[in-house]
Amino acid sequence: MKPKVMIVLGSGTDYTIAEKAMNIFEELKIPYDLKVASAHRTHEKVKNIVLDSVKNGVEVFIGIAGLSAHLPGIIAANTHRPVVGVPVDVKIGGLDALFACSQMPFPVPVATVGIDRGENGALFAAQILGTYNQKIRARIIKLREGYYEKVERDESHIITNIQ
Amino acid sequence: MKPKVMIVLGSGTDYTIAEKAMNIFEELKIPYDLKVASAHRTHEKVKNIVLDSVKNGVEVFIGIAGLSAHLPGIIAANTHRPVVGVPVDVKIGGLDALFACSQMPFPVPVATVGIDRGENGALFAAQILGTYNQKIRARIIKLREGYYEKVERDESHIITNIQ
Amino acid sequence: MKPKVMIVLGSGTDYTIAEKAMNIFEELKIPYDLKVASAHRTHEKVKNIVLDSVKNGVEVFIGIAGLSAHLPGIIAANTHRPVVGVPVDVKIGGLDALFACSQMPFPVPVATVGIDRGENGALFAAQILGTYNQKIRARIIKLREGYYEKVERDESHIITNIQ
Amino acid sequence: MKPKVMIVLGSGTDYTIAEKAMNIFEELKIPYDLKVASAHRTHEKVKNIVLDSVKNGVEVFIGIAGLSAHLPGIIAANTHRPVVGVPVDVKIGGLDALFACSQMPFPVPVATVGIDRGENGALFAAQILGTYNQKIRARIIKLREGYYEKVERDESHIITNIQ
Amino acid sequence: MKPKVMIVLGSGTDYTIAEKAMNIFEELKIPYDLKVASAHRTHEKVKNIVLDSVKNGVEVFIGIAGLSAHLPGIIAANTHRPVVGVPVDVKIGGLDALFACSQMPFPVPVATVGIDRGENGALFAAQILGTYNQKIRARIIKLREGYYEKVERDESHIITNIQ
Amino acid sequence: MKPKVMIVLGSGTDYTIAEKAMNIFEELKIPYDLKVASAHRTHEKVKNIVLDSVKNGVEVFIGIAGLSAHLPGIIAANTHRPVVGVPVDVKIGGLDALFACSQMPFPVPVATVGIDRGENGALFAAQILGTYNQKIRARIIKLREGYYEKVERDESHIITNIQ
Amino acid sequence: MKPKVMIVLGSGTDYTIAEKAMNIFEELKIPYDLKVASAHRTHEKVKNIVLDSVKNGVEVFIGIAGLSAHLPGIIAANTHRPVVGVPVDVKIGGLDALFACSQMPFPVPVATVGIDRGENGALFAAQILGTYNQKIRARIIKLREGYYEKVERDESHIITNIQ
Amino acid sequence: MKPKVMIVLGSGTDYTIAEKAMNIFEELKIPYDLKVASAHRTHEKVKNIVLDSVKNGVEVFIGIAGLSAHLPGIIAANTHRPVVGVPVDVKIGGLDALFACSQMPFPVPVATVGIDRGENGALFAAQILGTYNQKIRARIIKLREGYYEKVERDESHIITNIQ
Repeated sequence: MKPKVMIVLGSGTDYTIAEKAMNIFEELKIPYDLKVASAHRTHEKVKNIVLDSVKNGVEVFIGIAGLSAHLPGIIAANTHRPVVGVPVDVKIGGLDALFACSQMPFPVPVATVGIDRGENGALFAAQILGTYNQKIRARIIKLREGYYEKVERDESHIITNIQ
Repeated sequence: MKPKVMIVLGSGTDYTIAEKAMNIFEELKIPYDLKVASAHRTHEKVKNIVLDSVKNGVEVFIGIAGLSAHLPGIIAANTHRPVVGVPVDVKIGGLDALFACSQMPFPVPVATVGIDRGENGALFAAQILGTYNQKIRARIIKLREGYYEKVERDESHIITNIQ
Repeated sequence: MKPKVMIVLGSGTDYTIAEKAMNIFEELKIPYDLKVASAHRTHEKVKNIVLDSVKNGVEVFIGIAGLSAHLPGIIAANTHRPVVGVPVDVKIGGLDALFACSQMPFPVPVATVGIDRGENGALFAAQILGTYNQKIRARIIKLREGYYEKVERDESHIITNIQ
Repeated sequence: MKPKVMIVLGSGTDYTIAEKAMNIFEELKIPYDLKVASAHRTHEKVKNIVLDSVKNGVEVFIGIAGLSAHLPGIIAANTHRPVVGVPVDVKIGGLDALFACSQMPFPVPVATVGIDRGENGALFAAQILGTYNQKIRARIIKLREGYYEKVERDESHIITNIQ
Repeated sequence: MKPKVMIVLGSGTDYTIAEKAMNIFEELKIPYDLKVASAHRTHEKVKNIVLDSVKNGVEVFIGIAGLSAHLPGIIAANTHRPVVGVPVDVKIGGLDALFACSQMPFPVPVATVGIDRGENGALFAAQILGTYNQKIRARIIKLREGYYEKVERDESHIITNIQ
Repeated sequence: MKPKVMIVLGSGTDYTIAEKAMNIFEELKIPYDLKVASAHRTHEKVKNIVLDSVKNGVEVFIGIAGLSAHLPGIIAANTHRPVVGVPVDVKIGGLDALFACSQMPFPVPVATVGIDRGENGALFAAQILGTYNQKIRARIIKLREGYYEKVERDESHIITNIQ
Repeated sequence: MKPKVMIVLGSGTDYTIAEKAMNIFEELKIPYDLKVASAHRTHEKVKNIVLDSVKNGVEVFIGIAGLSAHLPGIIAANTHRPVVGVPVDVKIGGLDALFACSQMPFPVPVATVGIDRGENGALFAAQILGTYNQKIRARIIKLREGYYEKVERDESHIITNIQ
Repeated sequence: MKPKVMIVLGSGTDYTIAEKAMNIFEELKIPYDLKVASAHRTHEKVKNIVLDSVKNGVEVFIGIAGLSAHLPGIIAANTHRPVVGVPVDVKIGGLDALFACSQMPFPVPVATVGIDRGENGALFAAQILGTYNQKIRARIIKLREGYYEKVERDESHIITNIQ
C-alpha cells in the first residue's frame, strides 16, 4: 500500500524515537515509510524524498531531529503539506531541537510535539489524516480508549497494592 | 458558512495573536470562528465549545494561550481532531507557554508553532485542511508565493538602497 | 476514616513521588486517598474525582505531574479548595512541569512546591489542615522537631568522623 | 479586626505586587496586615513579625520577594503555619525568585504562585482560610463567578467587534 | 570588484545587523555582497546564491538569522567554504537562534559569533581571508589598534570626568 | 588552634563538596571548622554558629547549599564578615542554587563561586585571609604553582602519549 | 591616598554599574581607583593594571563585565589577591556574564555578586578589607544600619499611606 | 611538517574532545599540534603558545574549554588569526561554555561550534585552510562525501532491517 505518511529521521542514532512513531502507525494501520536523511548532510536527498513523496500520495510528513534540528523546517520549505516536528534530546535536554523545530518563521510552520515524543508525532499525523478518513478516526478513538483502559488497569493495580 | 477551524483564545488580552491567525483565514477564504475561553477560568465552556464545534463540522482547533497555557491541551483532551497550539509571551519570554503547549503526554499531542506566531498556527491549520481540499491547497500555494514575491521586492529594495 | 487530602497522580510512572507524600500523611495520621488520573488522558475522571472528593469532605488536593503538568491546574479549575502542585522531573530537569504548575492565571492559583518534592507537598497540605486542627499542628511540630533532631544526630556524626 | 493573613513584602519597590494581593483581601473581606521587611536586610524583624503574627492569630503568611527571594523561606522557617511565596521579576524574568521560592528543602515548604502574581497568592491564602470558614468560601465562589462573568462580557465584546 | 564575502540575511527586518557587518568590510576594503534570502521561504534562492557565489570567487559566507535560524546551516550544507553564523535576537533573547546556529551536526559546522554581533561576524570572515592575504591582515591589525586607541581615549575621558 | 574560617554545610548529603574545601585548608594550614546547619531547618542554629564564630575570631564564612540555597545569605544577614557561597547541584544542574547565592540584594552580598566548587570557595576564603597574612599568601602561591606544575606534568604526559 | 581597591571596568558603556561601586567606596571612605580595560581588547593593559596595582598596595580587585565577561577571570589569573566579579546584563538577561564570572576552574576563583550589582561588589570588597581594619568594619556596620533605618522609614511611609 | 593548526586544550580532562579534532586532521592530512594550557591557570603559557605558533606558521587556532571557557577568547586576544571555539559540557549542559565562547565583544570574535563538537571545530579550521589550498578542499569534499556514503549505507541498513 502506498504510504500516507513519510517519516524522515535526521540521524540513524535517533532510531528509537522513529520506532515509537512506527508502532503507532502499525497499530492504526496507516501505511507509512521511513527514510533517514539529514537536513545538512544529505540535503538534496531530503528535497527529493519530499518531492517524490508528494508525487506518490504522501499527505503528512514527520521530521525527527536533534541539535540544530533543521530537518522538519527543510521539509516544510519544500512542500505545502503539513509537517510535524519531533525534537530529540541529544544535548542540553533537547532545548536546542525544541526551539529549532517550533520557532519557525512565517509562512513555513512546523507543528512541534514534545521532546523525544515520536508516538505523539505519529498520533498527530494520524489525526490529520483522520480529518477526512472516518476509519482512521475510529481507530484513533479505539487506540486512545484502549490506552485509557490500560492506564486505568495499571492505576487500579497501584491503588490495590498500597491498600 | 460553517466554520472549519475553531480558534480558542485563552484570554482577551492576547487578542492581537488571534488577529494574526484570522487574517490568514480571511486571505485563504477558510471559514473560522473565534471564541474566548480560559482552560482554567471557564473550563466547562471550553469543553462545550469543543463538543459543539465538532458536531458543527469544525475540523481543526487552534488554542492560543500564555503562561501555564493549558488551553490547547484541554481542547486536545476533548476531541480526536488535530489541535494546534500557539504559545503567547506573557512572562519569561513565553518559555512557560512553549513548554506547556509542546510537552504533552501520549496520547494527547498538541502541535505547537512558535511563540506569538498566530499566523503560522493558522497556516498550519490550513495545511491540514489542504490535505483533502484542492482549493485550499491552491490558495496556500498562492499565499506563500505572494509572500515570497513581496519579500523578494522588499529585499531588492534593500539591496538597491545600499548600492 | 474519610480522607482529608486527595492526592491525584498524573501518571503511574511517577508513583515514587506520591509515595513520599503518603509517608508524610501516615506519620501525621492524616487520612488521605490516592487516585491516578491524567489531566489529558482521563480528563472526565479528574473532574469526577474532584467533585466526589469535595462532597466526601476532602479539604486539600495535591496534584503530582510532569511535562506539561496541567493536572493541578485542572483540579484547581474544578474546586474552590486549595490545590498544591508537585512538578515531576521527566524532561529538561522538570522546568516544564515547574512552570506549568506555578504560572497559573488569576483566579486559579496552584501552590507549587519544589521539583519531585512529594514530601513537601504533603507537609504543606498538612499545614493547611493545621490552621484549624490543633492536633495536626502538634504533629507537624513533632515531625519537624524529630527531623531536626535526626539531622542534628547525622551532622554530629559527620563532624565526629572528620576529627 | 485582627488580621488573618500577614503579607510580608521584601522590598518597598515591589509594592505594586502587594497591592494586587491587598485588593483581593479587600474584596473577600479578609482582615490582613502588610509589613515590609527583608529576609536579609532586617532579618530579626522578619522573625519578630512572624512570631507576633502567630501570637495575634495570623493563620497564613504571604512572602513577596524578588532576586534571591529568601523571604518566604525565612518566614516558613519560623512558623508551622502555611506560607505562600510570590516571586517578583527584578532580573532574568523572575526565574531567580521563582526557583528560590519553590525549590525549598524538606520540611520547610513554600507554596509558590506565578511570577508577579500577588492576586493569586492572596486568593490561595483565602482558599486556605476557606477550608474551615464557610463565609470566605462563599465569597471566593462569588469572586470567581463575578470574574468569569466579567471575562465573559469582555469576550462577547471582542467577538461582537470582529463580526 | 568581485566579492570575497557573501552576506546572506534571513529577513529584511534584521537589516541593522547586516549593516554592522557591512561597515567592517567597508573599513577593511574587502569586497562583499549582500543578499536577502530565507532558508525556508526562498530556499532554492539560497542554494543558487551559494552555488553562484562560489563560482564567482566568494570565499566566505555569513548567514544572519533569528528564531529557528537555519540559514547559516543551509548555506553550509551547500558549500565546502567556511560559513559564519550571526544569531539575531527576535524572541527569547536570541537563545533559539544561538542554538540553531551553533549546535550543527558533523560534518556541517557553522562558526557562530555572539547574538546580534554582525560586526564580529564580518571581522571573523576578514580573519579567514587574512590567513593568506597580507594586506587584509594588516588592515585588521590597524582596525583593531584604531579601535583600541579609541577605547583608550573614551576611557581616559571617563576617568578624567570622575576625578 | 582557633578557626579562621567557618564552613557551614546546608545538608549532610552535600558533604563531598565540603570535603573539597577542607582539603584546601589542610594544605594551606588554615585552621577551620565545619558545622552542618540548614538555613531553614535549623535556622536559630545558623545564627548562633555565626555569632559564636565571630566572637571566637572567625574571619570568613563559607556557606555550601543546594536548591533554594538560602544558607549563605542567612549567614551574611547575621555578620559583617565576608561570606562565600558555594552552590550545589541537586536539581536543574544547580542553577537554582547559583541564582539563590549570587542574586542577593544590597547590602547583603554573597560572593559566589562555581557550582559544586568547594575547593574554589576555600581558596577564595584563603585569599581574603591572605590580604593581611604574608604566610598564607605565600602558601597560596605555592599551592597554585604546585598545581600548575602538576597540570604541566599531566599535560606533557598527554602530549607524549599522542606522539 | 593610595587605593586599596582597584575597579576594572570591561567597557565604558557599563559605567553606571561602576558608579554604584564608587558611591559605596566614597561612603565608606575607602580609597579606590577605576580603570577601563577589556580582557580581550586591551589584554596586556589588564595585566599591567593588575601587576602595578599589587605593587602599589591594592588589596582587592573588582572586575565589572558583560557578555563573555572574562575580565574578572583574567585579573584573577594575574594575582593572588581576591577578585570580585560583577556580571553586567548586556544580552540574555546577563546570564552569559553571570556564568562567565562564577563558573571559574580551580585554582582561580572569582567571587561573583548579582547581575548589575556594583554596590554589592563594592560592599563585599569592603568586607574583605574589614577583616583586619576595625575602622572600615565600623563604617560598614554604620552603612548597613543607616540603610536599614532608611528602609524602615520608607516602609513605615508605605504602611502609613495604605491605612 | 610544520603545523598549520594549533589545538589548545584548556584541561587534560577534556582530552576526548580534542581527540575528535585530531582524528579529522589526520584524515585530512593537515599538520597540527596540540597543547594543553589553561586560560587562567597557565595564562602566560597560552600567550607564548599563540605567539610562537604564529611565528612558526600556524594559521588557525582551536580553543577547547568548559565552564567559564575563556581560553578561545584569550587566544583571540593575542592574535589576528582566526580562532575557533569548542565549548565543553562540564556543568549545566555546557551552556556556560557555549555562552563564554560565543558572546565575545568586538573586535575579538571567537567562531564557536556546537557543545563537545571537536570534530566540527577541526573541520571548520580545515575549511579556513581550504579557502586557499585546493588539496585540502578536495580532501574535505572527499571526507564529507565518504561520510555521506557511510551514513547512506547505515541508513539503508536501518531501512532494510525494519522491512
